[in-house]
Amino acid sequence: MNDPYVLVNDDLVPEKKASLLVSDLVIQRGYGIFDFFKTLHNIPVFLEEHLDRFFHSASQMRLSVGKDREELKALLHTLMEKNSIPDSGIRLTLTGGYSPDGYELVKPNLVITQKPLPLLSGEIFQKGTRLVSYPHQRQMPDVKTIDYLMAIWLQPFIRQNKADDVLYHREGIVSECPRSNFFIVTAAGTLVTPSRNILKGIIRMKVLELAASQYQTEERDITLEEVRTAKEAFITSTTRHILPVFRIDDQVIGEGQPGKVTAWLSNELERVVTIAAPGSATPAF
Amino acid sequence: MNDPYVLVNDDLVPEKKASLLVSDLVIQRGYGIFDFFKTLHNIPVFLEEHLDRFFHSASQMRLSVGKDREELKALLHTLMEKNSIPDSGIRLTLTGGYSPDGYELVKPNLVITQKPLPLLSGEIFQKGTRLVSYPHQRQMPDVKTIDYLMAIWLQPFIRQNKADDVLYHREGIVSECPRSNFFIVTAAGTLVTPSRNILKGIIRMKVLELAASQYQTEERDITLEEVRTAKEAFITSTTRHILPVFRIDDQVIGEGQPGKVTAWLSNELERVVTIAAPGSATPAF
Repeated sequence: MNDPYVLVNDDLVPEKKASLLVSDLVIQRGYGIFDFFKTLHNIPVFLEEHLDRFFHSASQMRLSVGKDREELKALLHTLMEKNSIPDSGIRLTLTGGYSPDGYELVKPNLVITQKPLPLLSGEIFQKGTRLVSYPHQRQMPDVKTIDYLMAIWLQPFIRQNKADDVLYHREGIVSECPRSNFFIVTAAGTLVTPSRNILKGIIRMKVLELAASQYQTEERDITLEEVRTAKEAFITSTTRHILPVFRIDDQVIGEGQPGKVTAWLSNELERVVTIAAPGSATPAF
Repeated sequence: MNDPYVLVNDDLVPEKKASLLVSDLVIQRGYGIFDFFKTLHNIPVFLEEHLDRFFHSASQMRLSVGKDREELKALLHTLMEKNSIPDSGIRLTLTGGYSPDGYELVKPNLVITQKPLPLLSGEIFQKGTRLVSYPHQRQMPDVKTIDYLMAIWLQPFIRQNKADDVLYHREGIVSECPRSNFFIVTAAGTLVTPSRNILKGIIRMKVLELAASQYQTEERDITLEEVRTAKEAFITSTTRHILPVFRIDDQVIGEGQPGKVTAWLSNELERVVTIAAPGSATPAF
């Protein structure tokens, strides 16, 4: 594949040349937000929801996107046409901008990248995932900031604990994984997910909507203790949709295979995604 | 003045062209560290101490500087000769690097910038500063990360409270300001500064050393309540050395002018800085 193009503000630039000046507050002060969505068969999945969140994050962080929703869609269309990567991940990053004093927010820079994303497989789902808990609370939890300092720093800790990812908690109340939301199915069969101090994922929202017809659902605090008694557990994200959790710390969850509720929700979610992106060959928005 | 040069790894680049690719983890994930020191009359002030901390930060964050101390000094020398800015601030930034998957740490990028820094004046010292307290704990507090998300986000809050900067605390235990350390002089005349959950500043260290000959000093927790009864308070930083604090929240500290201990320490510190940079005209290391 050729080097994909990147949008830096209004300019299409080959990825190997797409850059920001070092005076940008994202480099000087780690100040920026982003969002990330998937395209399937050239169709952006849940685009409106992702744009809603992108504008929300920008506004919370006092960053001006500098484009309205239609202008942003036109830019995305241009990038997708240029790159022609049907199954991809698209990331919009908005930074604090080229600040003369390295501190004061100025006009943000907007960077949009697109990369191929392999299609999900039943194999990945069946293999599930293992989590290790760690005490940490993301700052600005309801904003999709670029702050993954702790997540990346914890990679050796995750490997040492033979886990695939970390589950954050504060004083025993679990919140989320760095790039996914967390759900349990209680012994009584209720689907529960944390309600506060988290980033509200788009797939999390879809799962709650889908579950409502079939299961009792609750958005509330979950303790690590309750996690250990869960019948099922799974995580949700744009990249991996629903992934069963088979172990948390030293505790095996369920029977080490995808539980009934997890499997049902996963099937329903794939159905909804297929409706959202029904195999069209050209960008459709 | 001409556009100063910037070192991007081993390349001298004019500031207006100094850039990093958008794939750098500093842009993708806010992952990076830095340090910042002053030059006076072309002499780096407390350089060894700053380099100690820079290597410490890098090691804590699992980033390889890729150069030893002497190589780094040679680079600094090259940059200073090229720029010829006798009174300046020099910043070394080390990033997570151009990560193919946007998550895994790779070979870091090193960026070194130099900018003019106005000399300190007695006027700035006499004017002092006003702080407003805010509940926040920096992650990785003993590492000089680029994470100033909260500090920048709080700028409107600081202005609304007619303050100049924010004083972080957690559950009433104060820690530091975003870019400076915090000291009080108690009613009994003891100099106290927080000992944990802070970045240990170079000027903080120098002040503790200088004070030891003259005052009782303590490194320990300070509560917001104790701050309110302080006889004097001041902050320390590389940029501003010692700055008296005249108000914290609604509480006037001392008599609204620099206290005796603050003034004595400030004089002693200026004496030590003058010994460190005695007016030589050429880079001396």
